[in-house]
Amino acid sequence: MKSEEKIYGLHSVIEAIKSGTTIDKLYIQKGLRGDTFLELQRLISESHLNVSYVPIEKLNRLTRKNHQGVVAQISPIDFMPLEELVIQAMESGNPPLFLLLDQLSDVRNFGAIIRTAECAGVSGIIIQKKGGAPVTADTVKTSAGAIFKVPICKVDHIKDAVYYLQASGIQVVAATEKSDEMLYDVDFKLSTGIIMGSEGKGINPSVLKAVDKAVKLPMLGTISSLNVSVACGMFLYETMRQRLLP
Amino acid sequence: MKSEEKIYGLHSVIEAIKSGTTIDKLYIQKGLRGDTFLELQRLISESHLNVSYVPIEKLNRLTRKNHQGVVAQISPIDFMPLEELVIQAMESGNPPLFLLLDQLSDVRNFGAIIRTAECAGVSGIIIQKKGGAPVTADTVKTSAGAIFKVPICKVDHIKDAVYYLQASGIQVVAATEKSDEMLYDVDFKLSTGIIMGSEGKGINPSVLKAVDKAVKLPMLGTISSLNVSVACGMFLYETMRQRLLP
Repeated sequence: MKSEEKIYGLHSVIEAIKSGTTIDKLYIQKGLRGDTFLELQRLISESHLNVSYVPIEKLNRLTRKNHQGVVAQISPIDFMPLEELVIQAMESGNPPLFLLLDQLSDVRNFGAIIRTAECAGVSGIIIQKKGGAPVTADTVKTSAGAIFKVPICKVDHIKDAVYYLQASGIQVVAATEKSDEMLYDVDFKLSTGIIMGSEGKGINPSVLKAVDKAVKLPMLGTISSLNVSVACGMFLYETMRQRLLP
Repeated sequence: MKSEEKIYGLHSVIEAIKSGTTIDKLYIQKGLRGDTFLELQRLISESHLNVSYVPIEKLNRLTRKNHQGVVAQISPIDFMPLEELVIQAMESGNPPLFLLLDQLSDVRNFGAIIRTAECAGVSGIIIQKKGGAPVTADTVKTSAGAIFKVPICKVDHIKDAVYYLQASGIQVVAATEKSDEMLYDVDFKLSTGIIMGSEGKGINPSVLKAVDKAVKLPMLGTISSLNVSVACGMFLYETMRQRLLP
């Protein structure tokens, strides 16, 4: 395990990006200007990095060092490219099973989902570079270490990953309450990608349009609102149940 | 909703217990003595209250008032007696489904489980008076309000509840990794009680001996350790799946 680290200072961060260091999130002081900053901005845009523009007080809390308005949080894990992830899953001998998380925002939910995914034999987890929960020491902790056993892939847009999986012969199934079809009507013996949405907003409508099937969970109560990590557990359980049945 | 309240002082707490106030947990200063304290101890023992003996600093953090070494935390909900819970479930017209939690200790897991239980149409949740997570404002919050919709019953010992359910014609199924039988081999169309164990220790061995069936969840990964609220969700999903199938 790489320890959770921070890199600070304009030049150091620029060098880190150029050298291919896995940066999980970049914090930049609001209103920062200058030539070196313009170079940083160009690199950020090329690398599709996850950036937050914050007040200087936030940066001062992140590090006591001379940050010059820029702090980069290094990821405790390396990410796998989608193409490599799909090839590795296909070569495993079992039908691939991917989990796509559409801008899930809670670190504890993210960690719990990674843990469940490992137990369910998921081939890999696909997240979006921007808008989701960061991969931090907390994610590592709530995943109970599973984060080091399941490959994780960061893509620019979840929708592109959906198209890529479909083009590779993998069905993509979305978890949404806004469906009449039930989870257990899906054939999970096929190669599958399952998309779970964010806690507040669910799955992005444009992503939902791209999937092969949208299905819901059975509900027998009056609230009908499950925690996303519990709902994800139900999806993965159903997948295991079908795949283990003769 | 009753707001989360505390009662402090020996005499006030004694009166609260005598009047039948639903006390969730009692904090008593270590080394407390005296006649009034002996009366309190007698009441605690009669009512099987959940007590923690703590240093005075802990009590000072709980309240700034003159606590005299005793602080009682009032439950935000009332509990339903087991007999009443079983009768109510049987009269509902559907096969009863109970969830028994054997000394689950994490408040967030407890809240998440209550939320899932409501969504799954669970007839009631049975917990043990001693040793489990308290019912606090945090439980209410993580349950997303579901705690006000699912009856909760506190029993002296989970094992007694198992015997009572069995005597009422309800099968009791334990969730444990130490089994060769799979969750999906259980007939959940029958009236059922499902027992989930604590995060660290699982189900108490004496409770495990009393159940009708012990079953495990399918696992396809290498870690094989799920968060208890996720595992509980899988059990409740399987129950719903079977009950909704024609």
